[in-house]
Amino acid sequence: MSSSESQEPALSAEAQSKKAAKKEAAKQEKLRRKQEVAAAAAAASNLSVEDDPLAVNYGQIPLIELQSKTPVNVNDWTRVEALNDSLKDEQVLIRGRAQTIRPVGKKMAFLVIRENGFTVQCLVQAQPDLVSPQMVKFAAALSRESIVDVEGVVSIPAAPIKGATQQVEIQVRKLYCVSKAVPTLPINIEDAARSEVEIEKAIQAGEQFVRVNQDTRLNNRVLDLRTPANQGIFRIQSQVGQAFRQFLYGESFVEIHTPKLIAGSSEGGAAVFRLDYKGQPACLAQSPQLHKQMSICGDFGRVFEIGPVFRAEDSFTHRHLCEFTGLDVEMEIKKHYFEVMDLVDKLFVAMFDSLNTNCKKDLEAVANQYPFEPLKYLRNTLRLTYEEGIQMLKAASNDFALQEVGVEIEPFGDLNTEAERKLGQLVLEKYGTEFYILHRYPLAVRPFYTMPCYDNPTYSNSFDVFIRGEEIISGAQRVHVPEFLEERAQACGIEVKTISSYIDSFRYGAPPHGGFGVGLERVVMLFCGLNNIRKTSLYPRDPQRIAP
Amino acid sequence: MSSSESQEPALSAEAQSKKAAKKEAAKQEKLRRKQEVAAAAAAASNLSVEDDPLAVNYGQIPLIELQSKTPVNVNDWTRVEALNDSLKDEQVLIRGRAQTIRPVGKKMAFLVIRENGFTVQCLVQAQPDLVSPQMVKFAAALSRESIVDVEGVVSIPAAPIKGATQQVEIQVRKLYCVSKAVPTLPINIEDAARSEVEIEKAIQAGEQFVRVNQDTRLNNRVLDLRTPANQGIFRIQSQVGQAFRQFLYGESFVEIHTPKLIAGSSEGGAAVFRLDYKGQPACLAQSPQLHKQMSICGDFGRVFEIGPVFRAEDSFTHRHLCEFTGLDVEMEIKKHYFEVMDLVDKLFVAMFDSLNTNCKKDLEAVANQYPFEPLKYLRNTLRLTYEEGIQMLKAASNDFALQEVGVEIEPFGDLNTEAERKLGQLVLEKYGTEFYILHRYPLAVRPFYTMPCYDNPTYSNSFDVFIRGEEIISGAQRVHVPEFLEERAQACGIEVKTISSYIDSFRYGAPPHGGFGVGLERVVMLFCGLNNIRKTSLYPRDPQRIAP
Repeated sequence: MSSSESQEPALSAEAQSKKAAKKEAAKQEKLRRKQEVAAAAAAASNLSVEDDPLAVNYGQIPLIELQSKTPVNVNDWTRVEALNDSLKDEQVLIRGRAQTIRPVGKKMAFLVIRENGFTVQCLVQAQPDLVSPQMVKFAAALSRESIVDVEGVVSIPAAPIKGATQQVEIQVRKLYCVSKAVPTLPINIEDAARSEVEIEKAIQAGEQFVRVNQDTRLNNRVLDLRTPANQGIFRIQSQVGQAFRQFLYGESFVEIHTPKLIAGSSEGGAAVFRLDYKGQPACLAQSPQLHKQMSICGDFGRVFEIGPVFRAEDSFTHRHLCEFTGLDVEMEIKKHYFEVMDLVDKLFVAMFDSLNTNCKKDLEAVANQYPFEPLKYLRNTLRLTYEEGIQMLKAASNDFALQEVGVEIEPFGDLNTEAERKLGQLVLEKYGTEFYILHRYPLAVRPFYTMPCYDNPTYSNSFDVFIRGEEIISGAQRVHVPEFLEERAQACGIEVKTISSYIDSFRYGAPPHGGFGVGLERVVMLFCGLNNIRKTSLYPRDPQRIAP
Repeated sequence: MSSSESQEPALSAEAQSKKAAKKEAAKQEKLRRKQEVAAAAAAASNLSVEDDPLAVNYGQIPLIELQSKTPVNVNDWTRVEALNDSLKDEQVLIRGRAQTIRPVGKKMAFLVIRENGFTVQCLVQAQPDLVSPQMVKFAAALSRESIVDVEGVVSIPAAPIKGATQQVEIQVRKLYCVSKAVPTLPINIEDAARSEVEIEKAIQAGEQFVRVNQDTRLNNRVLDLRTPANQGIFRIQSQVGQAFRQFLYGESFVEIHTPKLIAGSSEGGAAVFRLDYKGQPACLAQSPQLHKQMSICGDFGRVFEIGPVFRAEDSFTHRHLCEFTGLDVEMEIKKHYFEVMDLVDKLFVAMFDSLNTNCKKDLEAVANQYPFEPLKYLRNTLRLTYEEGIQMLKAASNDFALQEVGVEIEPFGDLNTEAERKLGQLVLEKYGTEFYILHRYPLAVRPFYTMPCYDNPTYSNSFDVFIRGEEIISGAQRVHVPEFLEERAQACGIEVKTISSYIDSFRYGAPPHGGFGVGLERVVMLFCGLNNIRKTSLYPRDPQRIAP
């Protein structure tokens, strides 16, 4: 069973293995071929382009035309998004994909053209001296997902158009294929875009349909990315990055870029990818932790970084990847780790607000395929101590058997995934928020550079942040005293020699500081209530996947 | 001879080897120790803290106080930057580094406190019931670069203060050491901040001074980063990224994050870092080229990425690194690669404008240590064809022997570094700009995915962009026809099998597209007229350096 499929509870049982995936792909192809044959038959005729005096109005654009023969005015093209009734009777030129092609007899063909998620219906209808039957045949024979230039006149249809976002129709005058798709696509965008609700309906109606499983999607990621939900997901991801930066620029943070190639073995502990660096043993940074702290010692005061982080762990879960995008922050503090938590609070409330404001259409597209409720969060983020969290779980365990749902409570250990989920539920019930901070974690479960609590060194000045019961952020005050840092590293079994340049950084005067790291893919996954992190990574890397 | 040192023409001959570097470091340390001993002697006395009723006003802050004993109001601290005469007679609390400590007898000590590049002079003067002689002793014994909290009253000095940016003085009432620096720093910030002009002056005056060479700087990067020039450089770098993104967000680009772990051998050609990925051969992406193009096939229309790129090449030059930050753009075009060049033009003019507007102080700080003239650039960026460039070089060769300066002209080869420099000079003389685009490069010197010219396939729809005679951007229209792409890959000696998922991406309908990649560190280096890319990489990685 592949890791990604195991995260798809809604998948049919026979799709749960690689063999089944292959079978399904074959089934899909068969179905597709059938449809293609039908379409070709409908379009088939004895019309020939050679006999057509209007042949100049359609056809394949030769490559040479797309090799910059003459500069063009990009404004000659109208965006599909901009097509509306104010353009009635105007001649327009659009470029997009032939999403659907529906021939009606030999004299007519409907095309739905898609550009950037917006769609418009186009009618190619044979008319003397304007549109030849050969042109209709050419339109009907187009392969789906081909890119075309369509020139035509905007008209307003009598009845609303169901199959397109734009409520105008284009009476096609010219039609050129810019790039031809293969006639049989490995996955069909419509299939990949179908929600579970639609699938259930189709099953109940006894209709034939293809369910595209996660591995098939990822194997054909370029097609899969074209679904409205995926277009939305990665536009939301882009907005998360933008909101993150905008907020931090406003708070005087400097963006830094730290090396991913690290001598020795990074922070120790976690599994790292090792490689040979010009004859020296090296590894890929498991986070920018050491270098972002060093940058604080280098007097940048407040720094952030957005970049890849690498984990060679064999984690086969719905929320772990071998490579993901880290949003990292490190900042001087005066005395208290609450100063870091204050920033997290303001930053994420601002980010969620900006997503809800700027990504309405994208969130809707995601929800259409993967229904979810908007995230509940407070204006001032709730903070609970780890001890308070444990108390809440214990109190709840009086009501029902926590063990039954897999929740294990260890006062000085970490919360397991089930305990985190359960606590998320309890917090939502009691405080009405799905976003909260849990702080003062047991020291034993935090990295060596974490500052212990002043009053009880079994606890630490650290925190995790949760969305919908899952962790997205880990942060803390750091140990800035080199001798103490050495002691902590040794206590955690780290060979101090391998991180000597890091520890030395604190010998030249080091301000008290703290910071946190966020997993970008997790934020998007949990904000949208998705069930698998592979849905929010553009080209995911897990222990079994390094392609495409 | 190490690669980085070879880029420092101003260095004395004996500094040109690693041995010499060690020698120098030892020399430095000796000098530093002397100074420390002198300072300690000045501060030495038989005053004891135990006898001091005012002992509560100074001392080392115990760690427990910095372990979040009580939350503090960060607004209790005034920023050094904000200290001015409007605060006259007010009590303030500041935190910063003890940049210089100058005892005057036993009753007085001057401190210069630095925070974020701003400095203020503080006077610790013994006064009955206010400041004890023991406190003066404590101040005088502080090690440089230690972090201190200073509480005192703002006063306006009679004469301007030369050694600090702020024109007020603080009459110190309380002084606490937050973090102690070791008494002997491996490099002195003042030494590292000295310009060549100052060094020359010192030599002529027969003064003793320490010149800090590039390798010593990088070995002690955390200290080196504290110089005003380096503070400026990395704030400028942050602004370049910000300007880049702001412009692209405004042009409907989506920010993406592509994987750095790649199956097989990336794009082929260049040397890559290889590693084992869970039993599969893998490498580090030498650019996001393949995946950003695939994202265009995935319908994102216009994408950009800012992230690390990896080159395992043994390039020992002033402008090559093994890991650097790539600013990458890919976009659909209608027909012509000029559409990409139009974007480059507008984007970079906007970026340069924003640097000149928003980084005045930082540019000044860089110029103080490394003098340079502001970049000359036009409102509409000059475009020359490669052929025109060759003609300019050939015409110039009538006037003088180009070969003598190492310029080689190959009409269908690439320009070598000297030819690029020379052409930059000629362009500056003729057109008055140090920023221009050279396009229509010979196909043979471009990567396999480059679109050939429609009229002459020995040329290509590609371009490079230059600042001060050095390349910072490489871009082109790409081949979007899968069969042709395969043909080109084969012709360039690339095993098509290893990039099959990339080539397959174009089989499902691919829009004409183009893009470019920019080296962030090069942009900063050349905008500021610096002579070595190691100066603009936070923790540079070259064939001989993977630390700190």
